[in-house]
Amino acid sequence: MRYFAGIDLGGTSAKLGLVDGEGNILKQATVRINAQAQFVEIMAPIARRLKELNQTAGGGLTAIGIGTPGFIDSRSGLLLGGAENIPALKGNSLVSFLSDEFKVPVSADNDATCAAAGELKFGIGRNYANFVLITLGTGIGGGLVLNGRVFRGSRGFAGEIGHLCLDPDGLWCNCGSRGCFEQYASAPAMIRNYREKRQKRGQVTANNFNAPELFKAARQGDPCAETVIQDAACAIARVLGILINLLNIEACIIGGGVSRAGGQLLNPVINYLDDFTWPLMRKDVALHIAQLQNDAGLLGAAAQALERVSP
Amino acid sequence: MRYFAGIDLGGTSAKLGLVDGEGNILKQATVRINAQAQFVEIMAPIARRLKELNQTAGGGLTAIGIGTPGFIDSRSGLLLGGAENIPALKGNSLVSFLSDEFKVPVSADNDATCAAAGELKFGIGRNYANFVLITLGTGIGGGLVLNGRVFRGSRGFAGEIGHLCLDPDGLWCNCGSRGCFEQYASAPAMIRNYREKRQKRGQVTANNFNAPELFKAARQGDPCAETVIQDAACAIARVLGILINLLNIEACIIGGGVSRAGGQLLNPVINYLDDFTWPLMRKDVALHIAQLQNDAGLLGAAAQALERVSP
Repeated sequence: MRYFAGIDLGGTSAKLGLVDGEGNILKQATVRINAQAQFVEIMAPIARRLKELNQTAGGGLTAIGIGTPGFIDSRSGLLLGGAENIPALKGNSLVSFLSDEFKVPVSADNDATCAAAGELKFGIGRNYANFVLITLGTGIGGGLVLNGRVFRGSRGFAGEIGHLCLDPDGLWCNCGSRGCFEQYASAPAMIRNYREKRQKRGQVTANNFNAPELFKAARQGDPCAETVIQDAACAIARVLGILINLLNIEACIIGGGVSRAGGQLLNPVINYLDDFTWPLMRKDVALHIAQLQNDAGLLGAAAQALERVSP
Repeated sequence: MRYFAGIDLGGTSAKLGLVDGEGNILKQATVRINAQAQFVEIMAPIARRLKELNQTAGGGLTAIGIGTPGFIDSRSGLLLGGAENIPALKGNSLVSFLSDEFKVPVSADNDATCAAAGELKFGIGRNYANFVLITLGTGIGGGLVLNGRVFRGSRGFAGEIGHLCLDPDGLWCNCGSRGCFEQYASAPAMIRNYREKRQKRGQVTANNFNAPELFKAARQGDPCAETVIQDAACAIARVLGILINLLNIEACIIGGGVSRAGGQLLNPVINYLDDFTWPLMRKDVALHIAQLQNDAGLLGAAAQALERVSP
């Protein structure tokens, strides 16, 4: 039986899974990562664990897909930057390392591109030939599917939706630009806005206050939480409007941790969307919360490998 | 000898040409249009003249490409809107009409998409697999080339770059949205800004003042003209930054009437561009003025027909 490996590489652990062509996870495991270790020290235990999984599953491993934060050059396989919490990845090729170990096709993509591939192969994206996925979490990422294929751009970097400029005089972003989308609708941005609104009103917010609590507060009628979510929804609608007018897509999918808020996030986005789109382009666009939530990273990593080898 | 027809349909005339696979114009003609006439009255003389050209050239017509303003549904061939200065086009199919007359493949594209096809086949775009073209004129249009092919989106409407939102509280646009790019960098927007700046200073601007005069005034040291061009260049750089971060393209090409200003427009755009791009994405992007200037519409219309039938 043929199956694909997905490796979802994060700052504290790598999630591994063997996934069949329908998106069923046959085997899975988690390998702890010491983010400060050398490259081989990080990768060798991942390779070892993956070999064990493959043996148990019958040795049908066909291709390996890796998802990581940051920029992976699709020509060289080198991770060029943007994964600063695991310094040893920079300038190394996850692809070469695992190709040497497994002798099967290996490919690496940015985690948001993987998420788009996951929805295309195994999720709600199966219904569309042209869609964008945005992942709202600690940062904001994006993935594009155009004409039925994942679109990666000339070097594999396409989809940096979190750094589209919404305001040239806006907040400075850690990318060096000002007014990036990420500064308005990521989880930390929403929590910062909430904290500052409350501070203005003489109210203190707990240090570990998080996005699910923000949405809960809004459901309970907290006006600061409500306006923060409205403002984020407006920023999301602006960006989706740009994508719709530019790419004439059929669907927008919102994933990432913040998307667990479901309709509480999606409905205000839909309310704003008409303000930022041509009616003719808007008419045919469906908005969805990502279908893959748990294991989205692992499934997405496997899906991009499957998508690359499938016709 | 095989060749392609290009028809560039405008509000006062249609330019026709027979173009070979290298972009040489073999024959050309112009047909006057009565913009208020019925559909058949507009199209029949165009078809007649094209038949004459084809007979003179030896009858090798292989495919016909039409470029028009507005939205052409790529499935039905119907022009759905956006060409208000020729009302009879709306709801009619230029494609069906000419297919019936000529029995060769006929295709229609928005004029900016044609311009991108023209640069891809016959211009500076030949060197790139991924680029965007923006046309700056009375309005702003855009065309996308991705993975070596013209990208049209799900219904053929992709590339509405003139209506990307730069400011949700900005000027109202005739599309119904606010703060569209077109309100900041089209020729009328630049002239309006110049007129208002001068009015504030008690200076009168001629009614028929135009874009070439604006650039000339700036060359002569007129500070209002200089700042208007700088502001437009900043808006252009913002939009190109969005496109670069989103699509990881290799080149941006600026066409349309305003692009005749050449380096006087391009250089301030380049100066601003770093503010709005990831350095890693910016690094590999070339900026160009469109290579096809005269006959760009006609060549672009022929090029999209050629591009559709070529592998």
